[in-house]
Amino acid sequence: MKQLNIGVLVGSLRKESFNKKTARALMANAPDHLNFEVIEIGDLAHYSEDAEANVPVAWAAFREKIKSKDAFLFVTPEYNRSVPSVLKNALDVASRPWGHNLWDGKPAGIVSVSIGAIGGFGANHHLRQSLVFLNVATMPQPEAYIGNAASLFDDEGHVINDHTKEILVNYMQAYTAWVEKHVL
Amino acid sequence: MKQLNIGVLVGSLRKESFNKKTARALMANAPDHLNFEVIEIGDLAHYSEDAEANVPVAWAAFREKIKSKDAFLFVTPEYNRSVPSVLKNALDVASRPWGHNLWDGKPAGIVSVSIGAIGGFGANHHLRQSLVFLNVATMPQPEAYIGNAASLFDDEGHVINDHTKEILVNYMQAYTAWVEKHVL
Amino acid sequence: MKQLNIGVLVGSLRKESFNKKTARALMANAPDHLNFEVIEIGDLAHYSEDAEANVPVAWAAFREKIKSKDAFLFVTPEYNRSVPSVLKNALDVASRPWGHNLWDGKPAGIVSVSIGAIGGFGANHHLRQSLVFLNVATMPQPEAYIGNAASLFDDEGHVINDHTKEILVNYMQAYTAWVEKHVL
Amino acid sequence: MKQLNIGVLVGSLRKESFNKKTARALMANAPDHLNFEVIEIGDLAHYSEDAEANVPVAWAAFREKIKSKDAFLFVTPEYNRSVPSVLKNALDVASRPWGHNLWDGKPAGIVSVSIGAIGGFGANHHLRQSLVFLNVATMPQPEAYIGNAASLFDDEGHVINDHTKEILVNYMQAYTAWVEKHVL
Repeated sequence: MKQLNIGVLVGSLRKESFNKKTARALMANAPDHLNFEVIEIGDLAHYSEDAEANVPVAWAAFREKIKSKDAFLFVTPEYNRSVPSVLKNALDVASRPWGHNLWDGKPAGIVSVSIGAIGGFGANHHLRQSLVFLNVATMPQPEAYIGNAASLFDDEGHVINDHTKEILVNYMQAYTAWVEKHVL
Repeated sequence: MKQLNIGVLVGSLRKESFNKKTARALMANAPDHLNFEVIEIGDLAHYSEDAEANVPVAWAAFREKIKSKDAFLFVTPEYNRSVPSVLKNALDVASRPWGHNLWDGKPAGIVSVSIGAIGGFGANHHLRQSLVFLNVATMPQPEAYIGNAASLFDDEGHVINDHTKEILVNYMQAYTAWVEKHVL
Repeated sequence: MKQLNIGVLVGSLRKESFNKKTARALMANAPDHLNFEVIEIGDLAHYSEDAEANVPVAWAAFREKIKSKDAFLFVTPEYNRSVPSVLKNALDVASRPWGHNLWDGKPAGIVSVSIGAIGGFGANHHLRQSLVFLNVATMPQPEAYIGNAASLFDDEGHVINDHTKEILVNYMQAYTAWVEKHVL
Repeated sequence: MKQLNIGVLVGSLRKESFNKKTARALMANAPDHLNFEVIEIGDLAHYSEDAEANVPVAWAAFREKIKSKDAFLFVTPEYNRSVPSVLKNALDVASRPWGHNLWDGKPAGIVSVSIGAIGGFGANHHLRQSLVFLNVATMPQPEAYIGNAASLFDDEGHVINDHTKEILVNYMQAYTAWVEKHVL
């Protein structure tokens, strides 16, 4: 089977982040021909057009990473009913300067994760709106709103909730089919 | 008249930013008892809860500024149909740690600015959704979507379009009344 | 105390609707000087400008009701991640023809109700976006997303969940203060 | 070439609607193997679950139409920064009762049309959010926000603006490719 290179972007920088744990669980439950790489986004300076005159090293490296991937998986918390700045910035940096949208035409999936009941709905859909502009085909169903995240993992970061595990397995199955439809 | 201290947050870092010019024009057309301060947000590191253990100096200074204001005026471009990371980050930094939402209960207005026709509608309303969570009473009307921004200013940054000037004057009049209703 | 006339609009037509039950519970937990009327919206034909030439009787009656109120309380389910047509239509009918926006300048609150965990977040915020245009000052906090609605009421429609009851009481307290600030 | 059956849903009921004219222009500029049918939605009663006990004739006929199509094209105005009730209702009627989502898995495109500059951005993206839930793969780019609609057509409803004509031709080309990817 053709190998697929998937860039994983996680919207939380916290070391013990539930989003990082969710991302790991998603990767662990995916078919073998998906090659995942979690792409670092915490070191990217806030986007400003002025900086294009002297592109920061971290921006250049990040743009190369994005260019090299076939598809993307976004795992994000919600900050104040929207996308965390660190993830929004990653979208922006790889979409500029004008005419150099590196997300263009690649498929993606979104999983939002929160410790509350709502599961990051606001972040999930704000991210979808940005991806429309970036010409990313974002998988509609299954939606994935992972709520009550503080009760889903053991001390080593493994999913202990069977229903959640099933959701993640089903998600990656649908995601794989979606990516294959849009890439191959 | 009671002086009102207004914090102005601009979502663009670019030196020649149309948003900065719009912010200046808004301030120049406001009543005398509004004391404006443009608050620097470009030097704030991306929010991460881990950093609360050793709060960055720029965060601490920014939080003090926000605490000291009576109301806010947001002037923002749209990046990829949403709020630029630098502005989203400012919201996040002054809303945390939990229980320390410094925007709480203060009124605000939003002006979005773009070089295209749509005038930053996507950024404007994503920002409104975050401000609901932050308990900011955001002025509903007049909405302000400033489009085609590249044709509105002369070389010194003054508004040359009469219709735009009228929009900005009316906006600040309504904004002042809105702030007074919620602050005094 | 000055009496306040509150129009209540419920986004579900179903006879045993959890939204109707929630609306009743909200009204039962409000201060005495709020006079509520649940305004019928199920009989309003879909808005079309052509019908203004011969205004339907139900539209005319509904517009009179809206005109007579000081403030509004919206209680709505979510249909397909947005506002049910019956409620969206009510907004539209009382906002037209151009220049006759009957919601203009009146305050409101939104409570969204669903049988799932997410509590109608999508409907809640889509409704907020429309209310910005209609110049309705919509209360930001407390937000009210009432999830798992099927387990909250007894056979006679009374709230049996103490936490929910507390949420509704607190909501009406904040709502009353919000309305008084914008009306009196 | 395999014929594709496309259901066209127009969010305006007005006889001289700019949306109807835009829909006609889109259909006129599409490849021959797309068979279009404009599906009537103005006669559908507001959705209520109670009515499922005795399904309205118009609902049943509409549901059959939706079931028979391969893909959809939505052309919609914006009412109060969101989707008109008549179109939102059509989505709801063909998505219920639970387990009978007739939009499921079919691709779609959205064109929003307004007489103002913003081109129905609010309606466009609210509709996208609903289509995520309905498992409709909605084309991301090209986005189509048709503004200033009152100046685009002659008395017979033909597009007189060359730039707009080009936008519509390009749109239908991309739409056809998008539909073929998701249907064939």
